[in-house]
Amino acid sequence: MNRAIAHNSVLALSGSVLALSGGIGGAKLALGLHRILPPGSLRVVVNTGDDFEHLGLLICPDVDTTLYTLAGLANPQLGWGRADETWSFMGALQQLGGESWFNIGDKDLALHVERTRRVAAGETLTAVTADVARRLGIASAVLPMSDAAVRTVVETDAGTLSFQHYFVRERCAPRVTALRFVGAQGAAPSAAALDCLRRDDLAAVILCPSNPYLSVDPMLAMPAWRAALRECTAPIIAVSPLIGGQAVKGPTAKIMRELGLAVSPVTVAEHYADFIDGFVLDEADRDLAPRLEMPVLVTRTLMQTSEDKERLASEVLEFASSLVTSLAPRP
Amino acid sequence: MNRAIAHNSVLALSGSVLALSGGIGGAKLALGLHRILPPGSLRVVVNTGDDFEHLGLLICPDVDTTLYTLAGLANPQLGWGRADETWSFMGALQQLGGESWFNIGDKDLALHVERTRRVAAGETLTAVTADVARRLGIASAVLPMSDAAVRTVVETDAGTLSFQHYFVRERCAPRVTALRFVGAQGAAPSAAALDCLRRDDLAAVILCPSNPYLSVDPMLAMPAWRAALRECTAPIIAVSPLIGGQAVKGPTAKIMRELGLAVSPVTVAEHYADFIDGFVLDEADRDLAPRLEMPVLVTRTLMQTSEDKERLASEVLEFASSLVTSLAPRP
Repeated sequence: MNRAIAHNSVLALSGSVLALSGGIGGAKLALGLHRILPPGSLRVVVNTGDDFEHLGLLICPDVDTTLYTLAGLANPQLGWGRADETWSFMGALQQLGGESWFNIGDKDLALHVERTRRVAAGETLTAVTADVARRLGIASAVLPMSDAAVRTVVETDAGTLSFQHYFVRERCAPRVTALRFVGAQGAAPSAAALDCLRRDDLAAVILCPSNPYLSVDPMLAMPAWRAALRECTAPIIAVSPLIGGQAVKGPTAKIMRELGLAVSPVTVAEHYADFIDGFVLDEADRDLAPRLEMPVLVTRTLMQTSEDKERLASEVLEFASSLVTSLAPRP
Repeated sequence: MNRAIAHNSVLALSGSVLALSGGIGGAKLALGLHRILPPGSLRVVVNTGDDFEHLGLLICPDVDTTLYTLAGLANPQLGWGRADETWSFMGALQQLGGESWFNIGDKDLALHVERTRRVAAGETLTAVTADVARRLGIASAVLPMSDAAVRTVVETDAGTLSFQHYFVRERCAPRVTALRFVGAQGAAPSAAALDCLRRDDLAAVILCPSNPYLSVDPMLAMPAWRAALRECTAPIIAVSPLIGGQAVKGPTAKIMRELGLAVSPVTVAEHYADFIDGFVLDEADRDLAPRLEMPVLVTRTLMQTSEDKERLASEVLEFASSLVTSLAPRP
């Protein structure tokens, strides 16, 4: 069902909203939610499976993309890092023979250096991230999924690759045969993230249109997090990361093919079937709606402008709100 | 004796030359020596008492000033760091609430990050510094005085301060009551540095016009280094860091006053008396020559231009060369 929803209809939904997000695609919807919700009511739990140690620094690409996006500091051309960036550090590093396959801007580097220092001094990633969000003036909460190390490892026809080696250094070229989330089985979700899921005022949980296999699965691989999602009493809505069989950005479709999965939003919806209550399909995939055994919202999911992001955020929240009364306890 | 010496007279001196240096003042003479000596024949052993851990990074200000100066990359306005520098990192760090009293340029930062990573991975500071010098195209050898941590601590009327807190954060304002070199007693000079002093072809050792108390004493506080200087068979020449009772740059005169020392090149010469063979006085201090109980060269020691540096380097080497035949074994 495609419904025209006015922006202010979101006011029908009160309480807190939790978004689960990976990098750039997810952060766009998180930004839409951030803009339309009352200050302080959005919480974004972010994938840390992409995190890695590089140049002696703890780098958290998805957390940073979320922080920069919500702070209005993101680099729109690159899709990562900061706007109005300079690149002196990388040039000098190359001159010294340092590893230069992973680009880091000079401003961006400040966050890596400061976070590394603070975590080494004993602060949690959650605490550092919250403080950075506050200093960047972000009213929404940004929470790493865990303070424990969960590291996405990509098994490929070119061997076992750490996530950033696969994603950045090899530009996703190797064929993926399996994905592993090292440390996830034993990792506790951050207490602050779990609290978001258990709040009495939680009105909706939104799975942003991030790569299900690279960005959302690291969270789901933590048993306590998946269990908490299943127990959550608020409606959980997933937004399709595919439009007409393609990902807007990134290797979602390629990876699905390589893993032998049908490149379809139906596959994604089934992947989340044990805990979601509704699914958002793009208009291009309208015909697939009958194949989903759950409530479906069909709308434009491509987010190019601020208006796109806010409209989609508004529609998704309205959709979630519409499901509250119809929700039955999960089996 | 003031002697006009032609540049090419340095050719009379063959073999290797060892310079001992601190930061900017010493690096100027090291640069002069570097320019006039055949490639590969200059070795510069550099103070590491100023080194400190900051923002989780190992920062070696004097080593870096030496590297940048010899590579032609030094910032002439600042007297530290790199030319054509950008400052995006510091701005972003301030935005994040990071410590910003110690300025680090974006290019400069690459050296701190890469060195920290390599030392943490088990390389010695000596090895990393040699590799950086090679990558920056420096034909002379640049050697940290030790691979062990020696840390200058300044006792002041404002309490005990680490060197950079005294020097940069407090801008040398507190009154110095004592200087300590933590770790020096137990620190071994780097084997490579000691080798420089013991080379058969060593033609001269030059103590550059660095602050004796802040930049040279950390070396001398290592018993093995002082002993090796005393045993050295090549002439050792110290260049006065004072001109007419003032230091060209930095707190040498202020510290001497605060320590109750006469602010005079004579005091400096006496400070080094157990191992030097000759002393270089500025023309402004010509009258003091008779008070020094050793051979003296009186010349212009202020180094503003490249010509100044090369002329002084040439004259100092010539002076050293003139002492070789007259040297008696030290008692």
